[in-house]
Amino acid sequence: MNGSPYPKSFASDNHTGVHPAVLAAIGAANTGDAPAYGDDRWTHDFEAKVKEVFGEGAAGFAVFNGSGANMVGLAQTLRRPFDAIICPDTAHIATGEAGAAERLLGVKLFTVSTPLGKLVPSDVTKVLDALEGSNQPRPTAVSISQVTELGTCYTPDEVSALADVAHAHGLLLHMDGARLANAAAFLGCPLRDFTTDAGVDVVNFGGTKNGALAAEAVIFLSATLAEGLPLLRRQSLQLASKMRFISAQLTALLTDDLWRANADHANAMSRRLADGVSDLPGLSIHYPVESNAVFATLPPEAIPVLQSMYSFHVWDKSESVVRWMTAFDTTPAHVDDFIADIRKVLNA
Amino acid sequence: MNGSPYPKSFASDNHTGVHPAVLAAIGAANTGDAPAYGDDRWTHDFEAKVKEVFGEGAAGFAVFNGSGANMVGLAQTLRRPFDAIICPDTAHIATGEAGAAERLLGVKLFTVSTPLGKLVPSDVTKVLDALEGSNQPRPTAVSISQVTELGTCYTPDEVSALADVAHAHGLLLHMDGARLANAAAFLGCPLRDFTTDAGVDVVNFGGTKNGALAAEAVIFLSATLAEGLPLLRRQSLQLASKMRFISAQLTALLTDDLWRANADHANAMSRRLADGVSDLPGLSIHYPVESNAVFATLPPEAIPVLQSMYSFHVWDKSESVVRWMTAFDTTPAHVDDFIADIRKVLNA
Amino acid sequence: MNGSPYPKSFASDNHTGVHPAVLAAIGAANTGDAPAYGDDRWTHDFEAKVKEVFGEGAAGFAVFNGSGANMVGLAQTLRRPFDAIICPDTAHIATGEAGAAERLLGVKLFTVSTPLGKLVPSDVTKVLDALEGSNQPRPTAVSISQVTELGTCYTPDEVSALADVAHAHGLLLHMDGARLANAAAFLGCPLRDFTTDAGVDVVNFGGTKNGALAAEAVIFLSATLAEGLPLLRRQSLQLASKMRFISAQLTALLTDDLWRANADHANAMSRRLADGVSDLPGLSIHYPVESNAVFATLPPEAIPVLQSMYSFHVWDKSESVVRWMTAFDTTPAHVDDFIADIRKVLNA
Amino acid sequence: MNGSPYPKSFASDNHTGVHPAVLAAIGAANTGDAPAYGDDRWTHDFEAKVKEVFGEGAAGFAVFNGSGANMVGLAQTLRRPFDAIICPDTAHIATGEAGAAERLLGVKLFTVSTPLGKLVPSDVTKVLDALEGSNQPRPTAVSISQVTELGTCYTPDEVSALADVAHAHGLLLHMDGARLANAAAFLGCPLRDFTTDAGVDVVNFGGTKNGALAAEAVIFLSATLAEGLPLLRRQSLQLASKMRFISAQLTALLTDDLWRANADHANAMSRRLADGVSDLPGLSIHYPVESNAVFATLPPEAIPVLQSMYSFHVWDKSESVVRWMTAFDTTPAHVDDFIADIRKVLNA
Repeated sequence: MNGSPYPKSFASDNHTGVHPAVLAAIGAANTGDAPAYGDDRWTHDFEAKVKEVFGEGAAGFAVFNGSGANMVGLAQTLRRPFDAIICPDTAHIATGEAGAAERLLGVKLFTVSTPLGKLVPSDVTKVLDALEGSNQPRPTAVSISQVTELGTCYTPDEVSALADVAHAHGLLLHMDGARLANAAAFLGCPLRDFTTDAGVDVVNFGGTKNGALAAEAVIFLSATLAEGLPLLRRQSLQLASKMRFISAQLTALLTDDLWRANADHANAMSRRLADGVSDLPGLSIHYPVESNAVFATLPPEAIPVLQSMYSFHVWDKSESVVRWMTAFDTTPAHVDDFIADIRKVLNA
Repeated sequence: MNGSPYPKSFASDNHTGVHPAVLAAIGAANTGDAPAYGDDRWTHDFEAKVKEVFGEGAAGFAVFNGSGANMVGLAQTLRRPFDAIICPDTAHIATGEAGAAERLLGVKLFTVSTPLGKLVPSDVTKVLDALEGSNQPRPTAVSISQVTELGTCYTPDEVSALADVAHAHGLLLHMDGARLANAAAFLGCPLRDFTTDAGVDVVNFGGTKNGALAAEAVIFLSATLAEGLPLLRRQSLQLASKMRFISAQLTALLTDDLWRANADHANAMSRRLADGVSDLPGLSIHYPVESNAVFATLPPEAIPVLQSMYSFHVWDKSESVVRWMTAFDTTPAHVDDFIADIRKVLNA
Repeated sequence: MNGSPYPKSFASDNHTGVHPAVLAAIGAANTGDAPAYGDDRWTHDFEAKVKEVFGEGAAGFAVFNGSGANMVGLAQTLRRPFDAIICPDTAHIATGEAGAAERLLGVKLFTVSTPLGKLVPSDVTKVLDALEGSNQPRPTAVSISQVTELGTCYTPDEVSALADVAHAHGLLLHMDGARLANAAAFLGCPLRDFTTDAGVDVVNFGGTKNGALAAEAVIFLSATLAEGLPLLRRQSLQLASKMRFISAQLTALLTDDLWRANADHANAMSRRLADGVSDLPGLSIHYPVESNAVFATLPPEAIPVLQSMYSFHVWDKSESVVRWMTAFDTTPAHVDDFIADIRKVLNA
Repeated sequence: MNGSPYPKSFASDNHTGVHPAVLAAIGAANTGDAPAYGDDRWTHDFEAKVKEVFGEGAAGFAVFNGSGANMVGLAQTLRRPFDAIICPDTAHIATGEAGAAERLLGVKLFTVSTPLGKLVPSDVTKVLDALEGSNQPRPTAVSISQVTELGTCYTPDEVSALADVAHAHGLLLHMDGARLANAAAFLGCPLRDFTTDAGVDVVNFGGTKNGALAAEAVIFLSATLAEGLPLLRRQSLQLASKMRFISAQLTALLTDDLWRANADHANAMSRRLADGVSDLPGLSIHYPVESNAVFATLPPEAIPVLQSMYSFHVWDKSESVVRWMTAFDTTPAHVDDFIADIRKVLNA
């Protein structure tokens, strides 16, 4: 049950509402005056939580949304007009942000085609080799997504290997963590295992898809990289005046590992969904299910039938791939209903 | 009483929390799933409210903050790399947004020195005349603030005269309305009297300072000017995925004229404050009190004493001018306590 | 003989000096005063020549270099911050201009992999189809190079088909014509056959590689597209104060079809070179020789030996492809010497 | 005599042609092949000349025009999106380059009103003080023009004082030297006295107005500041492929102090002009004549009469100020004719 007259959406984890604990935290922060722009105790609490979770050297900054987190974080990795970024061609910064990287940062993205949305070290060195002696901009950062846009995860060792190759060539490693929690849940490890301890330089911690109203954190794992951030965040339109209400959301998720409970649950629901349909003839699971997304290939004629019943996106029309996402508030019953309907449609 | 152990802040109307009705509206919107990015009923309600208030031709778009509203609105007034903007030198876009206009829009701001933060038509024609035959960028918009940064208001006729001169020269008129409600309250007229009906082309309606958590509206008064806005808003980092929660805040303020009640009250508190201190020797009211701000000149030695007791900003150190702001939650008792303390300090 | 103690360079047509007629034209323009910034008779002559060659509707503007011509021309095809460009992945704007498109125009380039550096209409529609419903920027122009970076040429019909598909989707067609003369020479037709008459909207006419000192023309084939160009050219750092000396170079090339004689000759020298080596075992001609470039695959060990004797570039190290370019001042004897040396090295 | 049927222009030193020695140098460089993009002996000669004139630590780079020189030089002084520049409000970067600074660099210019176009140290500290604690971008460079736009010059001591205050606050000092030669001529000292030795960090040496066809140098006085310049120059559309012809122009001017002879002469002609008219009733010299410009206040009705006979610009219409410029090719006879005509018109 989701309080709505419609069946649960499998379209995106941003179709969900706000987790009750987050809403409660917003309410609790509503106690009269507080200084604006972050000099308040809720923001100080958030900053302390970031250090607790990501290490003493980490500096966290709250922003409004995921694109904002990416642009603010990446801007700190650039110093010159000819600096550039290497990323998978599926990266959200390359495909989902309306050209913000090119327009707001002025950078060229060197995109790499990857089988599972994941860069490997040789991808980086191949790009750098190809640029050798060219008249192209100069990469200064590698940007990866954890969870990737295809629902897959990097292991800590895989991240570490990328950090090593990036650093060896003087590049920084940026991680788009719009679904960072789901990666930690899948990997069964602390957030810092595949961020701080794996050599990541900047990472976002996505709150919105994990249960926040609108709150993301940009986290610099070496504090020197945060130099100038407050001014840059303001210029980048990502500074909340009543910041306590953004910070309080993030603190709520970071408290008592609520983020992990939410992500564990969402991931389990995707697993349940994939397991419940994978035996169906005509349906195949397209990418490994390593988070809260199931990518499935369906018979083309089944797609509109299912879409008339449930909300979800076609990922690749030409290959008949759909994406089903689960969230912190997806219930086993939601999933089981969906499975039953998929079976019915595909067996028809 | 403000629920805080400290005296009421007079530093800014963004030191306030969230108005209870706004918080309730957020909670009420938290009913399971809703489509992301604005295709939800709360956003449709907000859009309808905008038409109700600003006229059938108006198209409203919700964004996160005031700088975002300004940049998104102004971007729609520009078409070429050499387009420019005329504004007062006190404009928030010129002084308070960390160079966002120059960086994100790439525009030159032609700033005009004004006695009360208000442009007059001859300011516009003087700039245009001076540019005639020059090698300067070409102004395509005039941007004014209503309320101005100095707490003053344009009458509908004054706005109208500016719109006429702008349009006569092929320029659009943009209004930064971070405190639009306070202007309507001061003028005692509907919002559309000095926007739609006065010839404004784009206006922001500021929610945050009026009692929202974080919500501003960019409103295009002729719908053709909104062309491309959804993509631009995304690129400008101002697109909320769970947009219903932003829209619901704005709808709450626009419902039953809550915005006006909040603004009336805040303005009355500034009036009360100004009236309560204006007879004090050594203190003079610096600008006409036409909204929720009082600018006062104080004896320099009194400022730190008062600042040790109350939170407020020094506006101009060299001329010993301070700014005191009131808000929807400032009470007569807050003001009277403050007046008493000011009198004590100045009479000491 | 090239007046140099070294053998003729086959590295690039920009290793050449200035054609004597161009140098004479510069000298002839050096007659005391002339108005700056283009209001001079040499520039008026150039503008008239452009109309003579490209049609009465054409408006030509002189700039300094090829990247400048591309950026100024493309800027006129963009109106909004989310406008984008479709081009082959070999395009000079994508690979040779240090990220100027992303930095100065803020655009995303949607690049297409092509076998011979040439876009076909289905490339355009495939990109547009893939973007349908996405959160990507919106293409407003297709940019092609004539001659391509791989030395191949579009026929007038091929250009026309691209213009049709572009226009049908509301896009403009831009042509990077750094070697436009060589294309006309190869196709044996007037310049306007594959520009004006084929539906191109903006084209560069490259002077520098054809014999100028430093002079390129940006030509708008429908004059309305040139609106604002003078201001844009100044802002884009492409305005020569003593413009008569740039214009005079272009007029010299456009007079009595000097451009065609130069290009015919350069093309013939590449043809002679390709014909003279194509029978060699171990050497194969990599792309069709349709202009003044020969791309050849050589045994890897032969490359450094030849490079110790002649100046030329390795195009693709991994595939052992080299590029040899000829120019207006390459003589048959230069080519024959080079052929003899290539044969010697490859037969060794 | 200027080889033209018209009287000598007093409109601008860019109405002149090319000095014969510069034209000869271009011709002399036209000896067959040379590597492109600056790896040629003429460019090496130019680079050596720069070191000879500005000191061993200086690194010079040739570009096309003055705006290009300013943008390329200033870009090297910026590292972050919120970096800004302090300059006089008369600066060419603020008034004459169509908004290139805002568009291409994305910077805000903090402009200072000055009586004679010259900044003084307290101007810099006042701007910095006013920005203290603000939400404004952060100045990283001070940019001055030598000669200023008003024809005045900074003494070496004045430059030195500005460099000291800039460096003390962590800012760099940039000098727009479109007429650098005229300043050295006026001051009667070597170029390095008010550049290298006065603490300037980046300076342009303007060739075009001194007799070149189109050639300016960007000179970094500490070589580390030049890091990345080649890539930036390419991206900034200021890289000449046949660079030898740009370098040769600059070397010609820098050889045997031709630049000084040209500037001495031009300055002397302005002096002669000012001296010849300063006693006229109704005419007053508006700014000190310290270079090759004379600013004069005339009776308004005299201006169109004189403009029907001679080419020159009205500098300030409302105050009836005109600008008369002389150049390397202005003869005493030109000046005396002009004086005679001015006297005639004013005495009429």
